[in-house]
Amino acid sequence: MEHKELRVGLIGAGRMGADHALRLDQRISGVRLAAVADPDLDRAKQVADGTAARAVADPFEIIGDSGVDALVIASPGEVHEPLLLAAIDNDVPVLCEKPLTPDAKSSLRVVEAEEARGKRLVQVGFMRRFDVEYAELKRLLDTGDLGAPLMLHCVHRNAATPPGFTSEMMIYDSVVHEFDTARWLLDSEISAVTVRAPRSSSAAPAGLLDPQIVTIETARGAVVDVEIFVNCGFGYQVRCEAVGEQGTALVGGDSGPVIHRSGQWSGVVTADFRERFGAAFDHEFQRWADAAHQGEVDSAAADVWDGYAAAAACEAGVHAQVSGERTEVELAERPDFYAGG
Amino acid sequence: MEHKELRVGLIGAGRMGADHALRLDQRISGVRLAAVADPDLDRAKQVADGTAARAVADPFEIIGDSGVDALVIASPGEVHEPLLLAAIDNDVPVLCEKPLTPDAKSSLRVVEAEEARGKRLVQVGFMRRFDVEYAELKRLLDTGDLGAPLMLHCVHRNAATPPGFTSEMMIYDSVVHEFDTARWLLDSEISAVTVRAPRSSSAAPAGLLDPQIVTIETARGAVVDVEIFVNCGFGYQVRCEAVGEQGTALVGGDSGPVIHRSGQWSGVVTADFRERFGAAFDHEFQRWADAAHQGEVDSAAADVWDGYAAAAACEAGVHAQVSGERTEVELAERPDFYAGG
Amino acid sequence: MEHKELRVGLIGAGRMGADHALRLDQRISGVRLAAVADPDLDRAKQVADGTAARAVADPFEIIGDSGVDALVIASPGEVHEPLLLAAIDNDVPVLCEKPLTPDAKSSLRVVEAEEARGKRLVQVGFMRRFDVEYAELKRLLDTGDLGAPLMLHCVHRNAATPPGFTSEMMIYDSVVHEFDTARWLLDSEISAVTVRAPRSSSAAPAGLLDPQIVTIETARGAVVDVEIFVNCGFGYQVRCEAVGEQGTALVGGDSGPVIHRSGQWSGVVTADFRERFGAAFDHEFQRWADAAHQGEVDSAAADVWDGYAAAAACEAGVHAQVSGERTEVELAERPDFYAGG
Amino acid sequence: MEHKELRVGLIGAGRMGADHALRLDQRISGVRLAAVADPDLDRAKQVADGTAARAVADPFEIIGDSGVDALVIASPGEVHEPLLLAAIDNDVPVLCEKPLTPDAKSSLRVVEAEEARGKRLVQVGFMRRFDVEYAELKRLLDTGDLGAPLMLHCVHRNAATPPGFTSEMMIYDSVVHEFDTARWLLDSEISAVTVRAPRSSSAAPAGLLDPQIVTIETARGAVVDVEIFVNCGFGYQVRCEAVGEQGTALVGGDSGPVIHRSGQWSGVVTADFRERFGAAFDHEFQRWADAAHQGEVDSAAADVWDGYAAAAACEAGVHAQVSGERTEVELAERPDFYAGG
Repeated sequence: MEHKELRVGLIGAGRMGADHALRLDQRISGVRLAAVADPDLDRAKQVADGTAARAVADPFEIIGDSGVDALVIASPGEVHEPLLLAAIDNDVPVLCEKPLTPDAKSSLRVVEAEEARGKRLVQVGFMRRFDVEYAELKRLLDTGDLGAPLMLHCVHRNAATPPGFTSEMMIYDSVVHEFDTARWLLDSEISAVTVRAPRSSSAAPAGLLDPQIVTIETARGAVVDVEIFVNCGFGYQVRCEAVGEQGTALVGGDSGPVIHRSGQWSGVVTADFRERFGAAFDHEFQRWADAAHQGEVDSAAADVWDGYAAAAACEAGVHAQVSGERTEVELAERPDFYAGG
Repeated sequence: MEHKELRVGLIGAGRMGADHALRLDQRISGVRLAAVADPDLDRAKQVADGTAARAVADPFEIIGDSGVDALVIASPGEVHEPLLLAAIDNDVPVLCEKPLTPDAKSSLRVVEAEEARGKRLVQVGFMRRFDVEYAELKRLLDTGDLGAPLMLHCVHRNAATPPGFTSEMMIYDSVVHEFDTARWLLDSEISAVTVRAPRSSSAAPAGLLDPQIVTIETARGAVVDVEIFVNCGFGYQVRCEAVGEQGTALVGGDSGPVIHRSGQWSGVVTADFRERFGAAFDHEFQRWADAAHQGEVDSAAADVWDGYAAAAACEAGVHAQVSGERTEVELAERPDFYAGG
Repeated sequence: MEHKELRVGLIGAGRMGADHALRLDQRISGVRLAAVADPDLDRAKQVADGTAARAVADPFEIIGDSGVDALVIASPGEVHEPLLLAAIDNDVPVLCEKPLTPDAKSSLRVVEAEEARGKRLVQVGFMRRFDVEYAELKRLLDTGDLGAPLMLHCVHRNAATPPGFTSEMMIYDSVVHEFDTARWLLDSEISAVTVRAPRSSSAAPAGLLDPQIVTIETARGAVVDVEIFVNCGFGYQVRCEAVGEQGTALVGGDSGPVIHRSGQWSGVVTADFRERFGAAFDHEFQRWADAAHQGEVDSAAADVWDGYAAAAACEAGVHAQVSGERTEVELAERPDFYAGG
Repeated sequence: MEHKELRVGLIGAGRMGADHALRLDQRISGVRLAAVADPDLDRAKQVADGTAARAVADPFEIIGDSGVDALVIASPGEVHEPLLLAAIDNDVPVLCEKPLTPDAKSSLRVVEAEEARGKRLVQVGFMRRFDVEYAELKRLLDTGDLGAPLMLHCVHRNAATPPGFTSEMMIYDSVVHEFDTARWLLDSEISAVTVRAPRSSSAAPAGLLDPQIVTIETARGAVVDVEIFVNCGFGYQVRCEAVGEQGTALVGGDSGPVIHRSGQWSGVVTADFRERFGAAFDHEFQRWADAAHQGEVDSAAADVWDGYAAAAACEAGVHAQVSGERTEVELAERPDFYAGG
């Protein structure tokens, strides 16, 4: 009868972590931000400040701590593996920001660890699955209203990249969302990836292959094309048109007030992913917290296998980018434990 | 430092109350549903079931109760006045669903009580102010991007009415939102109301004047027309176009996936106000709870004066509907306590 | 077997006349511009220059001339009556730009003259009936797809007015289109007109009541509201939403390329009526010429009765504007000769 | 001074020819349909019937005939070459429906014949260049408003194919429009073509590879992707999004009335290319006729070199389709006579 809050430990206090701290502290019901861990302790303290959370430098200090019921991992992908293995070992539910880990091999180790544990604990933060429009697109495909799916046309644009952004990161940080979207919407593994690039935009930093067109093939014979353009200049735009045998559905079109002024009709493009997908993040976190309260994972979310499959697609994507060749994706056998799809 | 939850008592366990109970229990952060009051105790129990709340029949039992920090009133407007006066008397923050009270005279008594108390405690549930699109429209008008506002064109449609719905309720329950929207967007009191009706739709129950066109004049010389059509058949639709000296802005257009199928492009119309404005309700409640935590009211919300002004406009609206005449709105002098606008 | 061109005499060589001369000379098939008449002979010559037409000062010189098979009247409304009566007298088909004549009494004399002649010769230039979107809207209303019509919401905006434009002209030159649109779409005569104006835009010339909201009632109980705003600043915009018992249809929304640039999605608003309705004019003229070749009038076009009814509505409209009162429209009995509607 | 009609001979009285006969006879100004030629003389007679045209079986009978000033060729592409060579030889202006000829080698012979003649006489019927939206897109690219172009995303869908339609025809009859569109919009020759197909739709006839995704590279480093789906079921849809360094522009979105009914907002998809591009055909023909009157070709239209370049791209496209390989396009040197681009 007594209503108990889920005490969440946040690992990683960078831009994304700070955003999630705010989310957990102010918008998610039934949750208390209990701890913030970051090797940069000052940063951890800043994020914890004004909340009920304590700040620590060592993330392992809060994995298995009796005052922390569940974890959100928002640190760089490079350090995820040991954190995830420790969390699995300690039976702690985790919402892990993508990527699960930076490469397929290490992701597979997490798959194996969770399977060995015999209990699903880890969820991967592919938040598009929680966007109202994408969820409706998934529903349209699942009901068969559009007929069997044949193609997706995806567009993924950012206004500009931060310093140090590389062509490889365009696959690992950006297209990874389309890899997951394609797998999820089409209910099929990715079998091959090809990358073709027009000449780069003069707005892109020297050396960055921007934009690129990534072509994805799935095991069931669908083809997906993705424009990834991370210095498009005008804002953040994510769009997906699904083409089925009987019709199409498009999400991610323009929304918001329509203004007529100075010889134009117009509206505003969202500035970044936090604005565009803020509600999806909230929805994802609320569902995750509700499930964690019950000792479960959210069945709507991406699981560890999904994280592994995305990592494998990213590896193939970078190979395709560098080689200019169509690159097949090699996957391990899917354990029964992750049945579905 | 210790993070304490706001314990909320909910008064009214009807359809709206049940919806708000769910909201408070599952989606609003920092809040605990502590009590549910409804004269129909069984209904109160049903709503409280599965939450940490206790159920009571008498609402006055929870006003001033030391275990209830704040109140949400979702009971019929007819019983609001004594509840509000008791809450003010007990210094308890209240989020009161519209209407404040059913008529201007009683609303004015609430205004006077709160003013006498010398502290703002009551907020009225005009949730459109918390809708992302309406908020952006307000911003566009306030920045002057559209020039000084001259007109609003509003459309307010429901698929169908429940049994017993009357022409008068079309003003008090439906157009009341446009009264508040007009006052808020145009920052000006309503000075007169006229109602003109075409012949009624054959889909409307006998005796219901449906649709109607309500024309609103404001003190600053703007004119607002409102189509209210509560048996339009196809869904729930709320739209507002603001026309300024330099441009226009339209909110409430179609959204969601665009489907191409069977010779048509199409999309789905939202079914009811809870679907259309669900996120606005959440946003309103979260901000209210955050403010109540600080012992404050949300400055973005409608206050008691706004509730009174809407009640006065409704009275004029019903007079205009019955008489067919342009009806002026008589308002008391606005106390300095409610300065602004 | 031999293909003969329709030799058209154009009366009026102002801006509209010049536009129609170009249309007749270069875009309408089966037609030859044979004569251009304007009291300002130089202007007539300029318009005739480069075509096969001769220029004359006296319009009556070309009415009944054996070298002129049909007439287009684009001179000011004040001089239409004698021209029309002469054309009817000479059995010459006429496409007369609106208004038929400037007042109901004189329009009725044209009705009576044509009826006395016993042959339909005159068509009035309400070009919206030939716009693809309006025609589709008419079709939707006629098929009953939307249910019986209850309301129209119309918007009619111009960027700016030429010098000398008056409040009265807003009715006679602008709203006259909505009067015809309402009669045509709703298949019902106009029974009353009311005009209400917000404070005028600071962009409007001194003395001009701009914008205005014109409310039209029809004999069958529909209500139409029209925003007329002739100094809206941003371009030319004509929009109409029909609301029926089972649904609505909107025409006149934004069209053309959708651009994403500089943080905005946007498109271009058409600059004036010639751009917006140019194709409708072409379509109207081609159908008129094709019918005139057969010695007939185009049954899809507005006839003399329509011109008369519009003139009567304009008179009521100006009365309503000046008096602030709802003003009933008085119509003569409709002759069987103009059966329909 | 005397206004003389352009007497046009039409070669080919199939579906397209019949459509053009109607266009020439009824909608294009300054033109007379003088002759219709088709090996199936009955078909030629049917098309000529009701016009001033005579019907003949042998097309060469009307090439060089003193009663025929200009030619429209709407016969199958296989027979174009000798007709075009004869027209060039006789100095007769020609509007030739696409393709110029079915293969690059024969197209090059036409290029050489026209160059040898030293006078431009032949225009190729790529009508999209005359569509209002495409023309505006071209303007946006030429002014640099979008920055230098990097990509086009094209969609080309038909409801269903007639019997006998082959995968090869998807390139030659359908994608050929995108080849020309890409060359024209991007002002650059096509350098390579790749074709990738998802599994075919169950709605496609056995053996037809439908849909396909065609990737086009241009000499200046732009990349164009084209979805060609000729059994999409729901209607005819042609869409193009240009992506430049500073912004994007999309044409071919949904248009026409927006209907709200039965829980949906919706509109109608055009049924076929004649409905979608009818006005573009009219515009193309009128400009061609106007130019032919002056003994010139329309500089806005596709010329013989454009026809040759499209044929070469089609050859590469079919090779890419069959081989699955990226296929380079080999072009002859462009003669100075066809300078530009």
